[in-house]
Amino acid sequence: MPARKRVIGIIGAGEGALDGDIASARSLGELAAREGWVVLTGGRDAGIMAAACEGAKKVDGSITVGVLPGRESDVSADVDIRIVTDMGSGRNNVNVLSSDVVVACGATGAGTVSEIALAIKARRPMVIITDDPLARDFFAQLGGALVSFASSAEEAIALIRHHLT
Amino acid sequence: MPARKRVIGIIGAGEGALDGDIASARSLGELAAREGWVVLTGGRDAGIMAAACEGAKKVDGSITVGVLPGRESDVSADVDIRIVTDMGSGRNNVNVLSSDVVVACGATGAGTVSEIALAIKARRPMVIITDDPLARDFFAQLGGALVSFASSAEEAIALIRHHLT
Amino acid sequence: MPARKRVIGIIGAGEGALDGDIASARSLGELAAREGWVVLTGGRDAGIMAAACEGAKKVDGSITVGVLPGRESDVSADVDIRIVTDMGSGRNNVNVLSSDVVVACGATGAGTVSEIALAIKARRPMVIITDDPLARDFFAQLGGALVSFASSAEEAIALIRHHLT
Amino acid sequence: MPARKRVIGIIGAGEGALDGDIASARSLGELAAREGWVVLTGGRDAGIMAAACEGAKKVDGSITVGVLPGRESDVSADVDIRIVTDMGSGRNNVNVLSSDVVVACGATGAGTVSEIALAIKARRPMVIITDDPLARDFFAQLGGALVSFASSAEEAIALIRHHLT
Repeated sequence: MPARKRVIGIIGAGEGALDGDIASARSLGELAAREGWVVLTGGRDAGIMAAACEGAKKVDGSITVGVLPGRESDVSADVDIRIVTDMGSGRNNVNVLSSDVVVACGATGAGTVSEIALAIKARRPMVIITDDPLARDFFAQLGGALVSFASSAEEAIALIRHHLT
Repeated sequence: MPARKRVIGIIGAGEGALDGDIASARSLGELAAREGWVVLTGGRDAGIMAAACEGAKKVDGSITVGVLPGRESDVSADVDIRIVTDMGSGRNNVNVLSSDVVVACGATGAGTVSEIALAIKARRPMVIITDDPLARDFFAQLGGALVSFASSAEEAIALIRHHLT
Repeated sequence: MPARKRVIGIIGAGEGALDGDIASARSLGELAAREGWVVLTGGRDAGIMAAACEGAKKVDGSITVGVLPGRESDVSADVDIRIVTDMGSGRNNVNVLSSDVVVACGATGAGTVSEIALAIKARRPMVIITDDPLARDFFAQLGGALVSFASSAEEAIALIRHHLT
Repeated sequence: MPARKRVIGIIGAGEGALDGDIASARSLGELAAREGWVVLTGGRDAGIMAAACEGAKKVDGSITVGVLPGRESDVSADVDIRIVTDMGSGRNNVNVLSSDVVVACGATGAGTVSEIALAIKARRPMVIITDDPLARDFFAQLGGALVSFASSAEEAIALIRHHLT
């Protein structure tokens, strides 16, 4: 039996995340953990990262990985395994490469946009939970068939399942 | 007299760059070199990177730096100084952090979009040469005052001068 | 209850590892997993990395993390969670920063030496399983109190326990 | 005529560098610049890095490149071109990969040892200016024919010339 676990990267703004996107991240983290998937985030104790890990750790036996930008980063208490890169935003590429599927909770913030673009560059399937028409148009044009859109965590889970099979 | 030279990062698509954007990159590289600025690109022998270095090397005494993604990258023959990162797209963050001002020739391609977003994240002044309305709307919203738009290399040079003073 | 798990980095040569060092890595992986520690390696299907993960996966509920150098790296089948850096040897610094304690099984190979030195630079406690007098002298001088030496996996486990308390 | 310039990486301790090694670095920077080679260092305003750049900038038309660990690093005033990695010690691999030949002024300090080992791993020719018998024995065994030793900057220049032809 192969040891390899499926890893879902959940990305989004640290500071300035919208309330709705934070709620999506919390649900998504929990639902992903119930599927037995590892939840990987940027690890910081803020916004989407903290909410996704918090959701995942509601589930017994869940595993959360935080890929931290710095040695002194504030770390979410819900991160099981800390990967300390000391690479700042350079770690964004590690986040997407290490994920089987990447889900963005909101498309706000320059860090999030960089990760979506890096995921597309690396040919990783990308799900974006957003109703913002400008972001939808922009990323649909950039990513083509690699990018799909969801309006809720439940919809995102269905899309991830599709990509993993 | 301080040794430090001004560095202008010129970014854009490798494969699939538009002809107009390649022409802009060539002009921009030459005009930047005439100002005495170092021209920094992603170093590969393709698209915007190759054109910007080619333009710069028309100028006596110019200096071009190529920040290469891999050890085996195809390198533009117009790169004076090779920085070999072996970091793939992770080097995109190095490109923007090492530039005083970043100029995108076109906003096409996921690598380019990631670099524009990383530049905004790092608070680097960003000039985008594009007439694409979707890209203009998207990056104006993302970057606010950090981002300005130009329709030609000459306009971009004027904007860079403004940022450097 | 904090989620954070303890992470032990097990490092050593891929190709060219000595038989005795491979046996140590296998024992050490198993013993570390029995302690409930996450076993982190460079992830490749070779030498010390593969042996440490193989040992750890003999233990029910163990978790192994592989921090891979490339996107196309050969991965040990005993790696649960793949961190794909695409940074080549640049990932050596991520390995040591992400470990609470680093253990080298043997001190052979330039990659191993670079990781021992990076661990010392980052002030991570370092245990080296080696009887080679030249390596012992060299690293004792380089690392001072940060470095301790063991002759077996069991001795190494005792030293790790000491560092974690 | 190809644009490519030869790049000599000069490495060594920042804090705690020995006076003799600092003097070697200053001479080596100057002599390398007289040969028309680019001098590349870790860029910080300390120890070997600062001395090598200072030496190089005594020469008209010299070019110095500093590959900086952080965004807020103290930079030597004698660095012409700043490559800002924000990768901490992860940048050590970039330094050696970007150099045609690497010269260590002294073999003291964990950062220096990591760079020598990474240079050997990357198969870069490595010259070490040291009379320390332990360091000579250790690196001779680690690097074999890739590593040569010098007792002065002049000797190092002769060895570099040999490697570049």
